[in-house]
Amino acid sequence: METPPVPAKVDQDAVTAVLDGRWSELRRGVRAQMSGEQFRDPVDLDIEPHRAQVLEQLRELARTDRPGLGFDKAYGGGSDVGGSVIAFEMLGFGDLSLMVKAGVQWGLFGGAVQLLGTERHHERYLRRIKDVDLLGCFAMTEHGHGSDVQHLRTTATYAPGRGEFVLHSPDEGATKEYIGNAARDGHLAVVFAQLVTQGESRGVHAFLVPIRGEDGEPAPGVRIEDCGRKAGLNGVDNGRLTFTQMRVPRDALLNRFGDVAEDGTYASPIESDGRRFFTMLGTLIRGRVSVGGSAGSATKRALALAVRYAELRRQFSKPDGEEVVILDYLGHQRKLLPALAKTYALHFAQEGLVAKLHDIAPDAPEEEQRELESYAAGLKAANTWHATHTIQAAREACGGSGYLSENLLAGLKADTDVFTTFEGDNTVLMQLVAKGLLTSYKEHFEDLSPLATARFVAEQLVGAVIERTAARKVVERLTEADDGDVLFDREWHLKLFEDREEHVLEGVANRLRKAGKDPFGVFNAAQDHVLRAGHAHVDRLVLEAFVAAIGRCEDAEAKVLLERVCDLYALSNIEADRAWFLEHGRLTAGRSKAVIAAVNALCADLRPHARTLVDAFAVPEQFLAAPMLRP
Amino acid sequence: METPPVPAKVDQDAVTAVLDGRWSELRRGVRAQMSGEQFRDPVDLDIEPHRAQVLEQLRELARTDRPGLGFDKAYGGGSDVGGSVIAFEMLGFGDLSLMVKAGVQWGLFGGAVQLLGTERHHERYLRRIKDVDLLGCFAMTEHGHGSDVQHLRTTATYAPGRGEFVLHSPDEGATKEYIGNAARDGHLAVVFAQLVTQGESRGVHAFLVPIRGEDGEPAPGVRIEDCGRKAGLNGVDNGRLTFTQMRVPRDALLNRFGDVAEDGTYASPIESDGRRFFTMLGTLIRGRVSVGGSAGSATKRALALAVRYAELRRQFSKPDGEEVVILDYLGHQRKLLPALAKTYALHFAQEGLVAKLHDIAPDAPEEEQRELESYAAGLKAANTWHATHTIQAAREACGGSGYLSENLLAGLKADTDVFTTFEGDNTVLMQLVAKGLLTSYKEHFEDLSPLATARFVAEQLVGAVIERTAARKVVERLTEADDGDVLFDREWHLKLFEDREEHVLEGVANRLRKAGKDPFGVFNAAQDHVLRAGHAHVDRLVLEAFVAAIGRCEDAEAKVLLERVCDLYALSNIEADRAWFLEHGRLTAGRSKAVIAAVNALCADLRPHARTLVDAFAVPEQFLAAPMLRP
Repeated sequence: METPPVPAKVDQDAVTAVLDGRWSELRRGVRAQMSGEQFRDPVDLDIEPHRAQVLEQLRELARTDRPGLGFDKAYGGGSDVGGSVIAFEMLGFGDLSLMVKAGVQWGLFGGAVQLLGTERHHERYLRRIKDVDLLGCFAMTEHGHGSDVQHLRTTATYAPGRGEFVLHSPDEGATKEYIGNAARDGHLAVVFAQLVTQGESRGVHAFLVPIRGEDGEPAPGVRIEDCGRKAGLNGVDNGRLTFTQMRVPRDALLNRFGDVAEDGTYASPIESDGRRFFTMLGTLIRGRVSVGGSAGSATKRALALAVRYAELRRQFSKPDGEEVVILDYLGHQRKLLPALAKTYALHFAQEGLVAKLHDIAPDAPEEEQRELESYAAGLKAANTWHATHTIQAAREACGGSGYLSENLLAGLKADTDVFTTFEGDNTVLMQLVAKGLLTSYKEHFEDLSPLATARFVAEQLVGAVIERTAARKVVERLTEADDGDVLFDREWHLKLFEDREEHVLEGVANRLRKAGKDPFGVFNAAQDHVLRAGHAHVDRLVLEAFVAAIGRCEDAEAKVLLERVCDLYALSNIEADRAWFLEHGRLTAGRSKAVIAAVNALCADLRPHARTLVDAFAVPEQFLAAPMLRP
Repeated sequence: METPPVPAKVDQDAVTAVLDGRWSELRRGVRAQMSGEQFRDPVDLDIEPHRAQVLEQLRELARTDRPGLGFDKAYGGGSDVGGSVIAFEMLGFGDLSLMVKAGVQWGLFGGAVQLLGTERHHERYLRRIKDVDLLGCFAMTEHGHGSDVQHLRTTATYAPGRGEFVLHSPDEGATKEYIGNAARDGHLAVVFAQLVTQGESRGVHAFLVPIRGEDGEPAPGVRIEDCGRKAGLNGVDNGRLTFTQMRVPRDALLNRFGDVAEDGTYASPIESDGRRFFTMLGTLIRGRVSVGGSAGSATKRALALAVRYAELRRQFSKPDGEEVVILDYLGHQRKLLPALAKTYALHFAQEGLVAKLHDIAPDAPEEEQRELESYAAGLKAANTWHATHTIQAAREACGGSGYLSENLLAGLKADTDVFTTFEGDNTVLMQLVAKGLLTSYKEHFEDLSPLATARFVAEQLVGAVIERTAARKVVERLTEADDGDVLFDREWHLKLFEDREEHVLEGVANRLRKAGKDPFGVFNAAQDHVLRAGHAHVDRLVLEAFVAAIGRCEDAEAKVLLERVCDLYALSNIEADRAWFLEHGRLTAGRSKAVIAAVNALCADLRPHARTLVDAFAVPEQFLAAPMLRP
């Protein structure tokens, strides 16, 4: 098989320019700062010194204006939402504990104060949060409710006589769990609780609660426990918070979306409790976007380490006696290069998501807001699953050396492993994506429960998504063709992805329509199809983002190289899912085998460019300083 | 789709009886000892206290007769090879650092002294090794040569005047790397080096080298470094050994397979250097078998933790308000139950392998010995890859709780991650399996190089494997049939597995026949087919072992349950590989979709038995005492 040609030599900086895109100057700034010795890896630190080091690094970050990028200019901020997310993403090149701690302090805690609070909260806290004069927590997850946060059990009951809320954890399941900054450093927490006033529950709201006094001891009414050692991210002090009839003043309520008057009267611009809560959650989307982005950065670092090692390491001899560089083995290329291609694809998709988040108008139609949230959910899941698989593969590709802490992959693996779980469990997020597609983003988004999807679809005409596009016809025509060249035809890739999405979604809709009788049974029997629909949708968007990014590349040779990387992304995706394409008549057996051969051929063609492709990520060299890479 | 019925209640002990099999009494004995408090998990220990705890545990193990099971009765041993391997396997339920340290001390170090040495070595060392009065190392791997151990660079040059060998590491790549027991506890090491005498190199041999004096300081001529922190297994003191013109007496040579006379004359019963070395390696097969088995034990523990959690944890509500137990979700069953079925399948295959190892006659034909080695290689790879994937899935299935060290999955993941790498890199091992098939186990086994396979096959008629069996015809007939019941027809599963193996192997042979012109290019282009051939072979043996084990089950209800578990193993394997079956006309599109539906149906049917199936592993309760499982 002849694959389209790749230039012999491609300028690495030209590739970096495409990758860095719109926020390139900001990216360069973060790289420069992170190259400082104080941002070193914590290879051999125990928990307490690691926590201390990360806090020091956090203060160091606060000396620049980047932590304030996401805040209003009125409080020293930069009003640059996209930039603030990119800054978090770039922190993913270094110690991921710092990324998470920064995310908790500025993204989740600061973000909640800014986006759920009103001027009185902004005035009082935002500048101190930005400058790390006040450390805080984001206390949503409970022991008994992680994914299903609408049903949190902590209560905040308004006592009108005193003008106070009484915060209480009614049972062990209501203990706030896994709260970053809680075990050691946090003084104030945004606590999510069911607001009860005048004997009525008004759903989940956020409250500002002082959890520690000046002396660092827990405030009266709060019990704080340390979560202890975790698989990774041990530079973050996660803790548990339990409240016993703790009193906070009325203005502790972050009251942008709902307020309680002195006499206890409740008022909100949004009537439905569920819709109000999910509107609040929607404003906090930046955290989810940042996690996906930083998972991408960690993946880039792992691939850079593994590719450099694979170019250095030799094992077994050729007939002429020369030992073979392991990246020359097809099996080794297969472990790393399709993953590298997907990393490029996800990078460009992430960049597109950040741009959408940055550009969305404050008064954008709700549908647009929901579509953005759905894309953020899907890309977070795609990015973090990819990180888990790829970092694992990179570790294995470096053999025993990859298992030594000094060679950095062990820490990367351990730190990123929870990314598939936090900021939304990936499986739940993918269901959310599918639900968004089924409801055309228009309605009933306020319930995360998978059952609600089934019930809802059963009650509705399934709209836009079932409209036929021309994709299927194109796919069918190209399926019939003998022409081998279709394998490298971008139109064919795009149509195949589009057609798959459409067909899977249609199947899900048909299955869920039966939900009237036994909603749980019907939903459950279709769950694998629901998840597949989410994946097919995200895959299509990712491919389209890659294609769009290539269009922006100004260097002719870099452009050709990126086209081949995009071929490898598209074809290895098709290869992995070829059973589905075969079952549904989208691939013949012969073409399916040709796809496998094309992936092999692309691996061989891209192998000489592997180093350029990983070096173009421009990971600061101190994060690649593994002893296994010494020549 | 109707799946065959499963009894409502199955006796857990009856399942345990089938699992425990031939060495059931020994298994009960290990469980009883490991239930002692001194074998507790090292959840929050730092490196040094962890190493100390593991050494204490090792001494505790030495107080029973199990460590000696593999040694001759003359030195206090039990002459029970199978039992000794089962004892290592069972250690995999607990702290895996102990399993590895025990494996180094008794399996690798003691095993090498016993199997490569002669009476003078046995007399002097075996009893002290068994009793842990002498701690030792197995120093094979070098920095530059891990998989390709035939080309180790350490030299042992005989100096006839002094009657000594001079041991030397000529460069940094020759440093012995990753050597267990080296950094802290080992006093004697079995060092593998190129034997040079009378100016001629005779290939790799093993030498007994004192690396520490009585005072614990490195012996003159040895440099010892600590490998430092690893991703896991930090209770094992791995180190690096570098030799500078170090002198050891002539009788330091473990001389069973080759000896040097006082005047420097070399003599061996095996003429070829390569064949001699691989005969030595072949005697050390027990280590590889033990690693596979203990990976299985760790997998069982992870599944027991995840299934218990999934039966306890609830998330999201049904229409009636009741929260759903997460194991009731199809998506969650999909994460755990096919993996559980495969764990059963691999357990029975492992049990069969141990029986073969135990029963093989000392004078068995070389072909039988090679076949055993190949099966050990394949099952080690299958077991350890399965462990890595399943423990990862179990961690994710427990969400944030699974990430906390106290809940044990984090440690399991970190400890087992290197299993795919050590005792033979899995990719290299799978190539070895394929090579064994191509050469009918008869010849030319002495070179691990993948290229040698290509060269060899190119020169040979490919024999037995290409003989047609009746499998294909049966498969073709059944492919045509409309009868849905074939999905649960064991004969169909077996034939499908057999036919796949045969067809893939035939394809590889045809590809490799062209190797004459460009051996590396031809081998490399076929590498993915070579690996697939190894997998297809191991999968077939595993299914056959499962079927044989069910035949031994005496409890009627347990037998029916195991039949369904076997269905799930077979069908989820076919499902995962259905693209191949479709491409090669072994499945129609319709039947392929029916396979997916059958896997879903089996998940639903087995879900009520999930707890019985994991509890039947009888993992000692202290290794399941995770706080997340408190009711």
